[in-house]
Amino acid sequence: MAKRVAFVGLGNMGSGMAANLVKSGFEVKAFDLSELATTQARDNGCYIASTAAEAVVDADFVVTMLPNGSIVETVYIGDENAKGLLDSIPETALILDCSTIAPINARTVGSAAAAKSRRFVDAPVSGGVAAAAAGTLAFMVGGSEADFEDSKTVLTAMGSNIFRAGDVGAGQAAKICNNMLLAVHMAGTAEALQLGVDNGLDPVVLSEIMLKSSGCNWSLEKYNPMPGVMDGVPASNHYEGGFLVDLMLKDLGLAMEASLRSQSSVPMGAAARNLFNLHKHSDGEDKGSKDFSSIQQFYSKS
Amino acid sequence: MAKRVAFVGLGNMGSGMAANLVKSGFEVKAFDLSELATTQARDNGCYIASTAAEAVVDADFVVTMLPNGSIVETVYIGDENAKGLLDSIPETALILDCSTIAPINARTVGSAAAAKSRRFVDAPVSGGVAAAAAGTLAFMVGGSEADFEDSKTVLTAMGSNIFRAGDVGAGQAAKICNNMLLAVHMAGTAEALQLGVDNGLDPVVLSEIMLKSSGCNWSLEKYNPMPGVMDGVPASNHYEGGFLVDLMLKDLGLAMEASLRSQSSVPMGAAARNLFNLHKHSDGEDKGSKDFSSIQQFYSKS
Amino acid sequence: MAKRVAFVGLGNMGSGMAANLVKSGFEVKAFDLSELATTQARDNGCYIASTAAEAVVDADFVVTMLPNGSIVETVYIGDENAKGLLDSIPETALILDCSTIAPINARTVGSAAAAKSRRFVDAPVSGGVAAAAAGTLAFMVGGSEADFEDSKTVLTAMGSNIFRAGDVGAGQAAKICNNMLLAVHMAGTAEALQLGVDNGLDPVVLSEIMLKSSGCNWSLEKYNPMPGVMDGVPASNHYEGGFLVDLMLKDLGLAMEASLRSQSSVPMGAAARNLFNLHKHSDGEDKGSKDFSSIQQFYSKS
Amino acid sequence: MAKRVAFVGLGNMGSGMAANLVKSGFEVKAFDLSELATTQARDNGCYIASTAAEAVVDADFVVTMLPNGSIVETVYIGDENAKGLLDSIPETALILDCSTIAPINARTVGSAAAAKSRRFVDAPVSGGVAAAAAGTLAFMVGGSEADFEDSKTVLTAMGSNIFRAGDVGAGQAAKICNNMLLAVHMAGTAEALQLGVDNGLDPVVLSEIMLKSSGCNWSLEKYNPMPGVMDGVPASNHYEGGFLVDLMLKDLGLAMEASLRSQSSVPMGAAARNLFNLHKHSDGEDKGSKDFSSIQQFYSKS
Repeated sequence: MAKRVAFVGLGNMGSGMAANLVKSGFEVKAFDLSELATTQARDNGCYIASTAAEAVVDADFVVTMLPNGSIVETVYIGDENAKGLLDSIPETALILDCSTIAPINARTVGSAAAAKSRRFVDAPVSGGVAAAAAGTLAFMVGGSEADFEDSKTVLTAMGSNIFRAGDVGAGQAAKICNNMLLAVHMAGTAEALQLGVDNGLDPVVLSEIMLKSSGCNWSLEKYNPMPGVMDGVPASNHYEGGFLVDLMLKDLGLAMEASLRSQSSVPMGAAARNLFNLHKHSDGEDKGSKDFSSIQQFYSKS
Repeated sequence: MAKRVAFVGLGNMGSGMAANLVKSGFEVKAFDLSELATTQARDNGCYIASTAAEAVVDADFVVTMLPNGSIVETVYIGDENAKGLLDSIPETALILDCSTIAPINARTVGSAAAAKSRRFVDAPVSGGVAAAAAGTLAFMVGGSEADFEDSKTVLTAMGSNIFRAGDVGAGQAAKICNNMLLAVHMAGTAEALQLGVDNGLDPVVLSEIMLKSSGCNWSLEKYNPMPGVMDGVPASNHYEGGFLVDLMLKDLGLAMEASLRSQSSVPMGAAARNLFNLHKHSDGEDKGSKDFSSIQQFYSKS
Repeated sequence: MAKRVAFVGLGNMGSGMAANLVKSGFEVKAFDLSELATTQARDNGCYIASTAAEAVVDADFVVTMLPNGSIVETVYIGDENAKGLLDSIPETALILDCSTIAPINARTVGSAAAAKSRRFVDAPVSGGVAAAAAGTLAFMVGGSEADFEDSKTVLTAMGSNIFRAGDVGAGQAAKICNNMLLAVHMAGTAEALQLGVDNGLDPVVLSEIMLKSSGCNWSLEKYNPMPGVMDGVPASNHYEGGFLVDLMLKDLGLAMEASLRSQSSVPMGAAARNLFNLHKHSDGEDKGSKDFSSIQQFYSKS
Repeated sequence: MAKRVAFVGLGNMGSGMAANLVKSGFEVKAFDLSELATTQARDNGCYIASTAAEAVVDADFVVTMLPNGSIVETVYIGDENAKGLLDSIPETALILDCSTIAPINARTVGSAAAAKSRRFVDAPVSGGVAAAAAGTLAFMVGGSEADFEDSKTVLTAMGSNIFRAGDVGAGQAAKICNNMLLAVHMAGTAEALQLGVDNGLDPVVLSEIMLKSSGCNWSLEKYNPMPGVMDGVPASNHYEGGFLVDLMLKDLGLAMEASLRSQSSVPMGAAARNLFNLHKHSDGEDKGSKDFSSIQQFYSKS
C-alpha cells in the first residue's frame, strides 16, 4: 500500500516538492491556506485536506514547508488560539520540517515533539524553485541516525543530495553556515572581477584564470556574476530568476542571529549581509527580487 | 645550441626555478647579491655572473625574481647610482619579471623597455617554494600575444599552468585579484567552520556538506583550515609551511594599493586584509611566518 | 504621604537605584530572588517583599531592572507556570522598565499592559554602577507625553539626564542607536591612535589635536582608550571598571537584532560588534570583564 | 620692512590663503600655471612671478599648496626635466608645504631640504575653501620646535588653530589620523540615525539625545548628516558645498597607504573608505562633488 505523506505549505517550493512525492507513488494529503495553491496541488495529484490537522491524522510522514520559525513553532506546538499539529500526528509518523528557520526554532519543535513521543527531523533545502520542480534539491538533515535513514524514504523523491548534519537543529545550522559562506564568496567574486576590470583585465580571461587557481569557488564556477561571462546564469539574463536577494538576506539574517546567540565572530559574513542589504535598497528601487549575483552591479562604477 | 637564460634573484623561489631551467637544458647564467645563494646555484648547474649586467649581456631570456616593485624598477631602469639592466640586455632577448609587484610597477618597466626596444612580460607565479622546486608553478603572464608565446619556452620548464592575462601589467593584476579572492574565501571558510562548531556541528561533517554545496571553494577543498579535518595540509601540521601570512599580507597590500589607484570598492578584500593583519599581531607573537590558514585560530574562542 | 515604589531586580545597578529612591523619600518595597541582594536592600532602607506580586500590589510606581527581554516579558505577562505581574499591579500605578532589552520586547509588554489598562514606559539607563549609586544616571524614556511627565517623579531621584525618545519602545531604540555609535567611535578612536603611534606620533599630542579638530568624539574626550593619555579613565587603570566588554556586546547584539528586524544596513556597527567579539576571545582569555576601551589592546602590535 | 612670502599653487584653497597673507602685510610673490589663477592673485594684491623659481629667489618664507605628493616632490626636488626649487630657495628661508600628501612624501622632501641646508615643515590644513578665505584654517605642523615657532609668523595670518604634531611628516600623519576618524564617525552617525528612523525614532530627538550622551561626536554636533535636523549644514542644502566626497576619499586613500606601510590594522577606517567609495559610484552618477555627509543617502531605504 502506498505510504501516506501529509504536506503543509504549498508555496513556490512546496508545490513542486509535493508533486514529486505524488510522482514517486506516495499518497499525498496536502494543505495550504491559499485556495490557488490547493487547486494547483489537486491538479498535481494531491488529495486536499481542509485543515492541517486533517492532513496529518493518518500520515506516515509529515512534511512542512513554511515561511519562518515563528510560524513553524505555532503550527506544531500551537498557541492560545489553536492546538498544535503535534497532538494530531500519529506517534508512528516521522515529521520532516523542510522550512529554513533558526536552529533554535528547530530544536524547540524537536523537544516539543520528543515530549509527546513524536519523531522530528529538520531538513532545510538547498536549491531553488527549479530544483524543487525537478526533484534535484539538496537536503541538510538534523535528527537521529535512525530518523535520518527513515527520512530518506521521502527525501529521495524530492532531492538528489541528502546529508545528515547531526542531531535536531543541525540541518538548519549547516544550511546557515553554507549560505553565509556562499554570500561571502559571491560578494568576493564580484569584487575581484570588478577590481580586475578596473585594472584593465577581461573578465572572461580573469574568470578562466581564477577557476584554475586558488581563487576558485562555486560562485565563479557555477554562477559567474559578471554579465556575459557565462551562459545560462542569471547574470546573463538581467539577474532574473535564480536565488533572490531577499532569500539570501533571510538566510544571512538567520546566520547573524545564530552568531549572536553563540557569541561567534562573523566579520566577513556580517560585511556580506550589509553589502547585500545596501544593494537591495540602492538606486531607489527594491532589488530584493533580483538574483543575488546582482551584487555585481553594486560594485560597478557606471 | 642551448638557449641562454640570465637569472637574477636566487631566493627561496628563484633558486628552484633556476635549477629547473638547467634541468630542461638551458644554459643559465645567474646572479644574486648573496654568496650563499650563488654557491647553491653553482651546485645546481648554473654559471655565476659577478654582476647582473654581466649575466644578461648575451642572454636569449632574462628572468628576474625580486622582492618588490621598487627594486624591480631600479634593477631594470637604474637610478642616480647605477645604470639599469635594460641598457645591457640584447634587443633580441625576452625579459620575464616573475616577481610579485604592483601592476603599475610592471607597466613602468614595460614602458621603459619598449622605449629602448626591449620586449618585456610580467609573469608572477602562484604556488610556493615546493612548487618552485618541483617545476609545477602557475604563471600569470602580461604581455603581447607574441611575447606570451615566446615566454612559454622558459616558463614551461618551471611551471605547469601558464595563462595569458592580457598586456603588460595584466599578469600582476590577475594575481592580485586571485589572491584577494583567496583571502576572502579562506577567512570566510574559517568563519563558517567556527560558526558551525559553535552551533554544535562536527567540522568534518560540515566540510563534507559544504564541499558538495554552494559553499564550495578552493580553501575548503584543497586547504581546509580547521585542524584535523584534512590530512597533509598546514592546519594539520601546526600551520607550518604552506603560504605564509606575511606573503598573503604582501599580496593583499598590493590589491589594496591597486584598488585605491583604480578607485575600486573592495569592502570584502579590505576586511580580509585587516583580519589577517590583526591575526598576525594577535596574542603577543608575530604570526607572519605561519601558514595563512592559521586565520582559523583567530576565530577560535578558546 | 510618601509615594510607594515597587522595585524588582536588585543587581549591581538596581540596588543603587533603589537606595536612591529611599533617600529621596519614597517608600520602596523591593524584591529579588537573591537573598544577599534583599539583605543589602533592607540595610539601605527598603521593605522586602517575599514575591514580586506582593511588592507591586499597592504601588504608585513599579520599577524593574532585569537582565534581558525574555525575563521582562515573563515577569510582566507570565507563562504556563506563573501569572504575570500586570494582573497584580494597580491600574493607577505607572510601570517603568529600566532594563536594557529589545524595542520589540518593550512594545510587547507595553501592548500587554495597555490591553489590561496599565500604563507602561521603557526607561533604559546610560551610565554604570557608579552612576547608579550616585544617582546620576541618564534615562531614555519611551512612552506617552503624560506618562513621561509622570515618570520623572521617580527618575529624577535616580538620574540627572532624562530624555523622552518617543512612544513605548523608543527609549530602547534610542539607547541601541547611541551605544552602537559609541562602539563605532571607540573602535575608530583606538584605531586612529594606533595608526598615529605606528607613524611616529605621540598619542598625547595626537589626542590633543583631534580633540580640537573634526575627529573629536566622546571616546576621545571623556574616555581616551590609550594608556597614559588621560588620568582617571579605565585605560590608565589596566582597563578595570567602567563599561564592560560584555555589556557593550549585549547592546551591540540588540542593535544587530533590531537592524535585522528593520532591514537596516549597519556595516560600521556590525564591524564594531565583530571586533569587540574577536577582542573578547583573543589571547586565550575571556576579556568580557574588561572595560570596553580595552579594544585599544586589540590594535596593538606588541 | 615687510617679510616676503613666495606662494606656489593658487587653487581654491591657495588663492584665499595668499590673499590673507597680503592682508596681514606680507609681500607675496605668487606663482601658478593657470593664468586665471594668477590674474585673480594680482587683483588680491600679490606680485606675480613668471616661474616658481623666480618667486622663491629672495623669499623669507615659501608656501606651497599643491595637489599631491608626487607633484610636491617634483616641485622641490626636481626630475630629469627640471631642477627643483630647493636649489633656488635661500638658506635663510623657511619652507612650509601646506598640501595634503603622504607622510613619506613629506619626509622625502624634508630630507632633501636638510641635505641642502634648507628648513622645511609640513603644514597640512583642516577646513575648507570658506575657512581658507576667512583665515580660520587649522594647521597641523611637522617640523622642529624652532621651525614650528617660526612657521607661526605666516600661519597665524591664514589660520586660527595651529598645532605642532611632531617632526617632519608628523603634520601629515596627524591629519590622516584625524580625517580617518572623522570618516568613521560620520558614517557611524549616518548609520545610527537611519537605524533610529527605521525603528520609529524622530532624527531630531535622537540627535538631541545622542549629543548629550556617549554617542556624541563632531559629525553629530557640527555637521548632522540627516536633512532637516540642523540648519546651515550641507545636509540641509542638498549636500552642496562643505567637504567633498572626493577629498574625503583622497584623505582616506592616504590613510590606507600609511596603514599598509606601517602594517597597522584599520578595519573601521577601511570599511569607511569602501562605503564612501561605493556611495560615490552608486545610483549611476558620480557623487564625488557632493559633501561627504551625503553618505546619509547611501543608508536610506527609499
